Amino acid sequence: MTVETLLYEGKAKKVYATDKADVVKVSYKDDATAFNGVKRGQIVGKGAINNQMSNLLFAYLSENGVPTHLIEQISERETLVKKVDIVPIEVVVRNLAAGSFSKRLGVPESTPLPRPIVEFYLKDDELGDPLITDDHALALNLATASELDALRAQALRINELLQAKFAACQLILVDFKLEFGKTSDGDIVLADEISPDTCRLWDMETRKKLDKDRFRQDLGNVEDAYQEVYARITAIS
Amino acid sequence: MTVETLLYEGKAKKVYATDKADVVKVSYKDDATAFNGVKRGQIVGKGAINNQMSNLLFAYLSENGVPTHLIEQISERETLVKKVDIVPIEVVVRNLAAGSFSKRLGVPESTPLPRPIVEFYLKDDELGDPLITDDHALALNLATASELDALRAQALRINELLQAKFAACQLILVDFKLEFGKTSDGDIVLADEISPDTCRLWDMETRKKLDKDRFRQDLGNVEDAYQEVYARITAIS
Ligand SMILES: Nc1ncnc2c1ncn2[C@@H]1O[C@H](COP(=O)(O)OP(=O)(O)O)[C@@H](O)[C@H]1O
Ligand SMILES: Nc1ncnc2c1ncn2[C@@H]1O[C@H](COP(=O)(O)OP(=O)(O)O)[C@@H](O)[C@H]1O
Ligand SMILES: [Mg+2]
Ligand SMILES: [Mg+2]
Repeated sequence: MTVETLLYEGKAKKVYATDKADVVKVSYKDDATAFNGVKRGQIVGKGAINNQMSNLLFAYLSENGVPTHLIEQISERETLVKKVDIVPIEVVVRNLAAGSFSKRLGVPESTPLPRPIVEFYLKDDELGDPLITDDHALALNLATASELDALRAQALRINELLQAKFAACQLILVDFKLEFGKTSDGDIVLADEISPDTCRLWDMETRKKLDKDRFRQDLGNVEDAYQEVYARITAIS
Repeated sequence: MTVETLLYEGKAKKVYATDKADVVKVSYKDDATAFNGVKRGQIVGKGAINNQMSNLLFAYLSENGVPTHLIEQISERETLVKKVDIVPIEVVVRNLAAGSFSKRLGVPESTPLPRPIVEFYLKDDELGDPLITDDHALALNLATASELDALRAQALRINELLQAKFAACQLILVDFKLEFGKTSDGDIVLADEISPDTCRLWDMETRKKLDKDRFRQDLGNVEDAYQEVYARITAIS
């Protein structure tokens, strides 16, 4: 039996050291949190679904030229990824108004945006992940101007690829959150996860919500929604 | 006796129609509000000080090539200005961290910023004037991309001019809020006011706060602070 070194336990995943210095193991949990940790619960089977779905999407993005942290899935819930220094900026892409965008700016949910919008949020749970501008990111030394441009360009490219993928399984990609990180080589790669925890996904016909909003808003059938999304994605992959 | 038509009553000023369609009269009140109207009070003499100080600064900016709404002061509290359609964006310039910048981003008050930062806020009391990015402003049709660039450039130019002016009377310009508006000719000009209600001003030696933060934070001697700032400005003008 080997003793594993837990490097970090987040709200949805645990990160373990491996015998390689530049590789970590990510283990997905069933834990769900919302509203910056105020609401807590479990979504049975979520860890396995998010891990497998995220890997499937990362592999697809990688085939299409997007560098990612993905190395290799090792079990239903566990994946080896390149260890990165996470850029402390959550990158959000929006195609339709929803969530905090709707609430903060008074734009009704589901209003189409004239073009996809990229937003940066400071990744800091204590501060509640506040929205930041490019100037804030520069003043706080979170990234350089060219890194911000690269994040924005990469996020828009990923949006195009994901929109196509989800459209093929009758899902609207409303918005999603990405995290990027710097590898030991200094390259910036897509990290973290892409799953119904981090995307808003609506059925194209009925507009039924098939993502974490079912948990946030107590809409019921949360597990079913995650399974439905995963089944649709695997069916076309 | 002429009956005046009140076009709009805001938190700090009343706006009246005049016999010219493109001219309005602004009348400054002693009313003070903070935290989006939650805290209310009076600062005796504030209306007269803000009116006169604002006019003095607008005249100075105008002499230095900044187009403004100012036409003519008509009494201690009243001024004729070009009637504009206010651009619904509050433009904030920051030289040192303070206020919402410090709170939202966890940066201690008085931390110098590497360079002046311009922020845009949606002017909407009901939404609490949320911070917006350029992409938000474009998506909400608040302004065009070139108008946003012009607002930013104009705000930075005004910051340089005001910093010089305030430095000459031993005041640090920590941050301030501007409003711009479109005249009937379609020109964008500086509108609204520049006063201790809309600027953070600290004594250069003692760093004593000489602005609305004395009211917001119940620091006392609010009237004295407004008078002190006005006295210093008039002494060098
Ligand atoms: N390739 C990676 N290398 C190192 N850390 C990573 C990598 N990918 C994701 N992480 C980090 O793993 C942590 C655990 O994930 P998660 O449980 O989602 O955390 P959080 O509570 O911050 O959302 C997060 O801080 C995330 O940024
Ligand atoms: N030149 C102008 N023409 C028309 N309206 C103006 C002009 N300058 C300022 N205003 C507007 O006058 C209103 C009254 O000012 P104020 O009491 O400060 O309002 P608020 O409560 O919105 O801060 C504000 O909506 C402001 O934008
Ligand atoms: Mg996470
Ligand atoms: Mg005002």
